[in-house]
Amino acid sequence: MGPQPHGHVTLAQVATRAGVSAQSVSNALNNPERVAAATRERILAAVAELGYEPNLSARALRNRSSSLIAVKMRPARPDKASLLMDDFLYVLNAAAVDAGYHLILCHAEDGSAGEIKAYRDLLKKTSVDAFILAETHRNDDRVAALRSWGVPFASFGRSWDGDDGLAWVDVDGRAGTRAATEHVAAQGHRRIGHIGWGAESELGQDRRDGWLEACRERELETDLQAAVVDSLDAGRQAAHRMLDASRPATALVCASDTLALGVMRALHERGLRPGADVAITGYDDSPTAALVSPGLTTLRQPIDEVGRQLIQIVDNLMAGDLRQPAYALPQHVLLEPELIVRASSLPGPRTPVR
Amino acid sequence: MGPQPHGHVTLAQVATRAGVSAQSVSNALNNPERVAAATRERILAAVAELGYEPNLSARALRNRSSSLIAVKMRPARPDKASLLMDDFLYVLNAAAVDAGYHLILCHAEDGSAGEIKAYRDLLKKTSVDAFILAETHRNDDRVAALRSWGVPFASFGRSWDGDDGLAWVDVDGRAGTRAATEHVAAQGHRRIGHIGWGAESELGQDRRDGWLEACRERELETDLQAAVVDSLDAGRQAAHRMLDASRPATALVCASDTLALGVMRALHERGLRPGADVAITGYDDSPTAALVSPGLTTLRQPIDEVGRQLIQIVDNLMAGDLRQPAYALPQHVLLEPELIVRASSLPGPRTPVR
Repeated sequence: MGPQPHGHVTLAQVATRAGVSAQSVSNALNNPERVAAATRERILAAVAELGYEPNLSARALRNRSSSLIAVKMRPARPDKASLLMDDFLYVLNAAAVDAGYHLILCHAEDGSAGEIKAYRDLLKKTSVDAFILAETHRNDDRVAALRSWGVPFASFGRSWDGDDGLAWVDVDGRAGTRAATEHVAAQGHRRIGHIGWGAESELGQDRRDGWLEACRERELETDLQAAVVDSLDAGRQAAHRMLDASRPATALVCASDTLALGVMRALHERGLRPGADVAITGYDDSPTAALVSPGLTTLRQPIDEVGRQLIQIVDNLMAGDLRQPAYALPQHVLLEPELIVRASSLPGPRTPVR
Repeated sequence: MGPQPHGHVTLAQVATRAGVSAQSVSNALNNPERVAAATRERILAAVAELGYEPNLSARALRNRSSSLIAVKMRPARPDKASLLMDDFLYVLNAAAVDAGYHLILCHAEDGSAGEIKAYRDLLKKTSVDAFILAETHRNDDRVAALRSWGVPFASFGRSWDGDDGLAWVDVDGRAGTRAATEHVAAQGHRRIGHIGWGAESELGQDRRDGWLEACRERELETDLQAAVVDSLDAGRQAAHRMLDASRPATALVCASDTLALGVMRALHERGLRPGADVAITGYDDSPTAALVSPGLTTLRQPIDEVGRQLIQIVDNLMAGDLRQPAYALPQHVLLEPELIVRASSLPGPRTPVR
C-alpha cells in the first residue's frame, strides 16, 4: 500500500488492506453475523491498523444532517457580461461555511422540469438538506416541487405572484434603474432611451418601471423603448435604431451590462464616444464594466449581503423545522443596488476617467 | 404540519410529528433500547405516516461512498477579466454529474495552509471522496497533504517540479502565446512586446517562453518585456512604457485578458486605436474579450475537455483504489489552446469587425 494513511481513511483502503471487498468491510462493521469470524478479525485488524473511523459521515448525518445546501449552477454564456453567478456562488459558499454548511452544486438541463428532476436526484443520491433557488418567475414549478417534498429552501429573487410563504432575498431593480435615469437626467439629458427585456421577464419589467417613473416625474418622453433578448447584438441593434430616430437618444439606460456593451459596440461602429457623445448605463457591475474603456456606469448588487441573508434564512428554516411547522418563518429581504458612476455616462473631457 | 410530505422526509419532520427531539428519533431507529417503548411506538408511527426513509443517505454511503468531489471556489476579483472559474465549475459539475458524482464547494482563506485546513474540514464534516486542485505551483503543500491522507485527487495544472505521480490536466500556454506572436508577426509587426507575470509564476514563465521562441525564430528583438502583477492598471502602465520607448512596440502579446484590457485602456488614453494603431492579444477568452469594442484577440482554453478529463481521472483513481495501490494510475493530459482572432490584432479598417 502506498502512502501512510493519516486522517481520512476510506472503506476501500480497509478493504484493500484486508484483501476483501468493500461490502465485506461494511458487513463486518454493520452486520457482523454475515461475515465469517476469521474474515471479520482480519477486517477489524485492518480497521485498527489504518485508524479507519467507520461512522464519521454517519455521525455527521445523525447530528445535524450532513449540512449540505444545494444550488444550481447556471452555464456562463460567451456573449453575457453578467457573470454575477461567479460572485454569487463565492459569497454564498463563504456564508454557508461560516454557518456550518457546505454547498453542493446542482447540474440541470434548461427549464424547470429539468431543474426539478435534478433536485430530486440530489435528494435521492446525496444527503442534501436545503436548496437555494435563483431567477424566480411567475408560477414557478420549482417552488411547488420543493414544497411538496417538504424541503427547506430560499430564493434569490422575490415571488412574482405575491406568494407570502416564499422566503426570498432580492435586489430592487426599479430603484436601480431609477437612480441611473436620474443620474443621466442630472447631466442634462432629455432624450433618454431604455433598452430592456420583453414583457415575459418580471425582472425586466421591474427595471423598466424605474426608468419610466423617473422620466414621468421629469416630464420626459418615454417613446424610446426597446424590449429585446439579453445579448450584445440585441443591444447594439436597439442602439442603432434609437440613434437613427428623428429625435435621437442622447442617453441610453440599459437593463444589463451586456446590453450596454452592445450600445458601446454601436457607438464604436458610428465613430461616437461613450460619455462624450452618448451617455450609457448598464446593470450588474459585471467585471467587464470596470475593464472596458471608457469604464461603464452601472448598478452594483449587494451580492455579499444577498448570500449572507439567504444562508441565514435557510438556517432558520432548518432550525425551525424542529419547533414549528415548516414555512412558518417567511422572510422577505429587498436590498438596494448602488450606482457606480464611470466615464460612459459623463460628458467628458475625453481624458481618462476610471 | 404544513405541506403533505412526499419524497424527501427529514428526521426533523418525524421528530416534530412525534413531538420528540431529533436525537430520540435517531435512537428509536438505531439504538431502540435507549427509548421508552411508548415513545418508540409514537416515533415509528410518525415514520410510517410520513414515509420517512431513515437509511437513504446511509445506504448511498455504503454503496459507493456519497459520490462527492470537492473543488475550491476562488473569489472573483473586480479588476480581473479571467473569469474562467465560472466556466470551469460549470463544465466540471456537468462532467461530474454525468459520471455519477456531485461537486461540493470548498471555501478557503488565501494560501495553501488555509486551503489544506479547509480540505481537512471537508473530510471531517462531509463524506467527500475526492478533490480537484487548481493553480498548481512548485513545492505544492496541498499535493503533499492530500497524499498523506490517502485521498484521490487530480489537478487542473501540471506538476511544475516534475512529479510524475501527480495526475493532472493542463493547457499548453507556451503553444498559445507562440500562436499569438506568430499571428501578429504575420500582420507585419516587428516590434512585438510581451506583458506577463513575474518569475515566481510558472504559468507566466511558460506563456512568456512561447513569445520568446516565436520572436527568436524570426530574429525579432525581445527587449520589450514586462513582468508585472495581473491587473488592469499593471497592463496599462506597462503598455505606456513600451509605447514611450525610443523604438516603440507596434504589437503587444499579453499573458492574460486582464493585462490586454489594461493595454486597451492605455491606447484609449493616448487616442490610439487597438488593431489599427497597435495590435493587442490577450489570453483566456474571458467573456469580456468578446464584449469590448473592438473585440480582443485571445487564446481559448478547451475548458470542457479539461473538466471531462479531470473527472475521468478522479473516477479512475477511485475505482483503482479497490484493485491496486492508490496513485498507480498517473495521468497527464496537455491540451492545446485555440487562437480566437478579433479586431484588436488586425490592421483595420476602423469599420466593425467582431
